[in-house]
Amino acid sequence: MSGRRKGPSTTRQELLDAAREVFADRGETATTREIAGKAGVDPAMIAHYFGSKGGLFRAVTSLPIDPADLVAPVLDAPREDAARELLTALLTGWDAHSSVLSAVVRSATRNKTLAAQMRSFILDRAVRPVVGRFSPDPAEVETRAALVASQAAGLILARYVLAWEPLASAEPSWIVDHIAPTVQGYLTGPLPASAG
Amino acid sequence: MSGRRKGPSTTRQELLDAAREVFADRGETATTREIAGKAGVDPAMIAHYFGSKGGLFRAVTSLPIDPADLVAPVLDAPREDAARELLTALLTGWDAHSSVLSAVVRSATRNKTLAAQMRSFILDRAVRPVVGRFSPDPAEVETRAALVASQAAGLILARYVLAWEPLASAEPSWIVDHIAPTVQGYLTGPLPASAG
Repeated sequence: MSGRRKGPSTTRQELLDAAREVFADRGETATTREIAGKAGVDPAMIAHYFGSKGGLFRAVTSLPIDPADLVAPVLDAPREDAARELLTALLTGWDAHSSVLSAVVRSATRNKTLAAQMRSFILDRAVRPVVGRFSPDPAEVETRAALVASQAAGLILARYVLAWEPLASAEPSWIVDHIAPTVQGYLTGPLPASAG
Repeated sequence: MSGRRKGPSTTRQELLDAAREVFADRGETATTREIAGKAGVDPAMIAHYFGSKGGLFRAVTSLPIDPADLVAPVLDAPREDAARELLTALLTGWDAHSSVLSAVVRSATRNKTLAAQMRSFILDRAVRPVVGRFSPDPAEVETRAALVASQAAGLILARYVLAWEPLASAEPSWIVDHIAPTVQGYLTGPLPASAG
């Protein structure tokens, strides 16, 4: 297999695809030999394209967008538009990079390091700053952030990863119209008495 | 590896674990040799425990509960309690079988057949019957079902698969208190004018 001739962009992409699978299965203990074997290329190609196994791991798990940049404009939105702006930012960012981001979600369901990283991207860098800006009470930020993130994660899973209709094919504006009231309630509405 | 001695329950479980991974990666074209190799057991053990590769596939993808049984009592609930009853049924069923069901979700994110099956379990057998019972307008059932399923799927992903706090450790009643208003809105509340 390692004798096949491939163009550089194909080899690089095949290494990324193979590494995503192997890291998800076995974590950072996966060897360059395993990854190269799965990709059907010479292990030396990993050093060539990514410098090291660590460089390949960072390439696999880095996002094409920074969630903090994506939600930055939401922080300036009027309070009553916060959920619409947040969902629009989420859908715009995801629609532009859905295949890479969906691969990250698939990997995160199988690997604790990647799950923690996905939590950090979604909760720490995107959702919590927005919730912190609009929550009526600082003591409620963690609860509200988890609720917003649960609806956002379900939308992502249904629309992009599992391709459930009508969510998979709906226009972003349709999604925003239908889901923003939920997210706005989680952001700024009353919480049950048991809320922390 | 195939020379190791193992107890029958260990071998059976290792075959199930290996098959879940291999089927998710390669679909039903995966061979018994690959699955047995990943489990480190003799391929003949597949015939012994599961009859055939098809039997093993069914064992891997069958749920320990029928979602239709789980939601049957919800159909008799008062309209205003429908969401609370549906979420309680979902959490009760999932809490009792979370490791198997989380494995099914992980596999479904990687394999189209399993994704379609998960869609069928959640949407066709659990959510749509409940929505059909309580939706004010039959023309809105598909939209309402997708919205309910997106929040339910996000809750499952956050609580069970990614283990996000505070959802991962919260009491079922806390989750119901916080998320039932959303689900009740999707079931029986007004939809935006663009709704089908």
